[in-house]
Amino acid sequence: MASEWDIIELFTRNLKLQGDLPLGDDAGAIRLGDEWLVATNDMLVRETDVPDIMTPEQVGFKAVTMNVSDVAAMGAKPLGFLFSLGIPADIDTNYLEGVARGIGEALEFYDVPVLSADTNKADDLIIDGMALGRTERLLTRSGAKPGDLVCVTGDVGRALAGLLLWKNKMDVPKRIREPLYEKLLEPRARVVEGMELSRYANAAIDVSDGLSKELHLLSRMSGVRLEIDVERLPIRDEVIEAARMLGVDPIEMALTSGEEFELVFTVPPEMVTALQMDFTVIGRVENGAGVYITTDGKRTEMPLLGWEHLEGGLNGTYRALFR
Amino acid sequence: MASEWDIIELFTRNLKLQGDLPLGDDAGAIRLGDEWLVATNDMLVRETDVPDIMTPEQVGFKAVTMNVSDVAAMGAKPLGFLFSLGIPADIDTNYLEGVARGIGEALEFYDVPVLSADTNKADDLIIDGMALGRTERLLTRSGAKPGDLVCVTGDVGRALAGLLLWKNKMDVPKRIREPLYEKLLEPRARVVEGMELSRYANAAIDVSDGLSKELHLLSRMSGVRLEIDVERLPIRDEVIEAARMLGVDPIEMALTSGEEFELVFTVPPEMVTALQMDFTVIGRVENGAGVYITTDGKRTEMPLLGWEHLEGGLNGTYRALFR
Repeated sequence: MASEWDIIELFTRNLKLQGDLPLGDDAGAIRLGDEWLVATNDMLVRETDVPDIMTPEQVGFKAVTMNVSDVAAMGAKPLGFLFSLGIPADIDTNYLEGVARGIGEALEFYDVPVLSADTNKADDLIIDGMALGRTERLLTRSGAKPGDLVCVTGDVGRALAGLLLWKNKMDVPKRIREPLYEKLLEPRARVVEGMELSRYANAAIDVSDGLSKELHLLSRMSGVRLEIDVERLPIRDEVIEAARMLGVDPIEMALTSGEEFELVFTVPPEMVTALQMDFTVIGRVENGAGVYITTDGKRTEMPLLGWEHLEGGLNGTYRALFR
Repeated sequence: MASEWDIIELFTRNLKLQGDLPLGDDAGAIRLGDEWLVATNDMLVRETDVPDIMTPEQVGFKAVTMNVSDVAAMGAKPLGFLFSLGIPADIDTNYLEGVARGIGEALEFYDVPVLSADTNKADDLIIDGMALGRTERLLTRSGAKPGDLVCVTGDVGRALAGLLLWKNKMDVPKRIREPLYEKLLEPRARVVEGMELSRYANAAIDVSDGLSKELHLLSRMSGVRLEIDVERLPIRDEVIEAARMLGVDPIEMALTSGEEFELVFTVPPEMVTALQMDFTVIGRVENGAGVYITTDGKRTEMPLLGWEHLEGGLNGTYRALFR
């Protein structure tokens, strides 16, 4: 079996024509008059991507969210959704009905029409979604500028904390479990925030593979150095409590947790007050390279932690080829 | 297992928001200023969709063709292609490389950039493709008008003739086998013709599921009656010879053959001379309902023949949900 990197190399070598924005961002983009048309796709495979506590409604909803989130990370307003289903012969009709309901609920939640759908026989349940969006100003991973502040929406860490509680069959109080499972099972894309950011931010990326990975991508693609303050990371108390119970470092948990669908962005300091949304400043952009993190006055290089490092088997997908 | 129709019903019930063109055409569409943005998706599953004589290059090329063909049937110029791959753990790297090469060749052939790609573990090789297009004037399945001529590009029947030769392991002369296999293994989308037709035609559809099915769809969605002359159907001699060897009616073979990717369209008679492309007039549009076919002066209702009727197992996909 070829490694993930072999596969990426193999395809990039054979695909010469690209859109007006080169491959490597949250979504592809082409110019249409004064605007950008943004397009992205993301496949969900039940066997590898879905914990068994997830309801079919949550599965359907998430298949939409993961695509809409990539559109939001480009600063675009979602325009439409398409999906292809692979359906195993022995699927339970009630399960399928739940998936359909979840997709329908998500499309209403994000106010996005479905443009096309296709269904096929397959060995496992597969939902391959695609979302389109439009924006006058595109947010990319490569736009961060020295002097910008590094910010993030919402909080980070709950998805992985919830996943590890579930995998380790930990019995924890409801007040801890609920907010963690909510983020694990019902994450929401930051659509309104993405549109607001398209007016002010210099760069953005959504947290699909963990904050650490996204920060490293931002740094590398923008050719800048990022300085992050540990004290500023928005980590909820429930994540810290769960991490302690699991014997895991809560900071490492927060930096590793994927599929959070929060937006990480950089914005000039003078623009910060203009932003009509909730977010946390977690650091700043400097000249140079790499991602550094300061804890109690001690500055170290931030390790490139991935979703797969802490939790192994469950999410065994080769993460998106060209993102 | 739910039937195909149960699945379609189940999803349509749960998906309320649709694009500016309702579901049910070759592709979905939304208005963008003075233009239409067209979007479509179609999944190819190796186990059910790929004859074993098909090279990986042909598989990759076809995954692009089937999507671009739907864009062409809407009269749109292809803008971009996206794909998600499901890759089994035991796949041969050379095979995957061939698929990548085929996708790359097709994108160059149709001059379409790739906008986004995603790869995941799956039990079988899956290529889920999506194509975008734009056009000032949209061609739909519902625009046929009484008085129009019914026309088709190219010829019909070769794909199924080739498939049946292969399935029945028939030994036939190369001069017969080659043109049939060419259409089966290397079909091409009618992109230039689709763009030309967007200026003149009233309705169009591509031949995915067989001419008979497409004519019935055109008739039903346009609310018109179609009168087809058997003598005018563009059927190549090799199809007639293969049908005789197989003991199959060549007309039935031509009407049933799917994945031909020819365009069936209706056009006002006075526009026919303006069309700068090759095509054949096969009948006319009248007031009323249904599809009728005249053979040697004898007029009968055209049966609704499907790809699956003649060849059974191979293409066991539930054909596109909403097309």
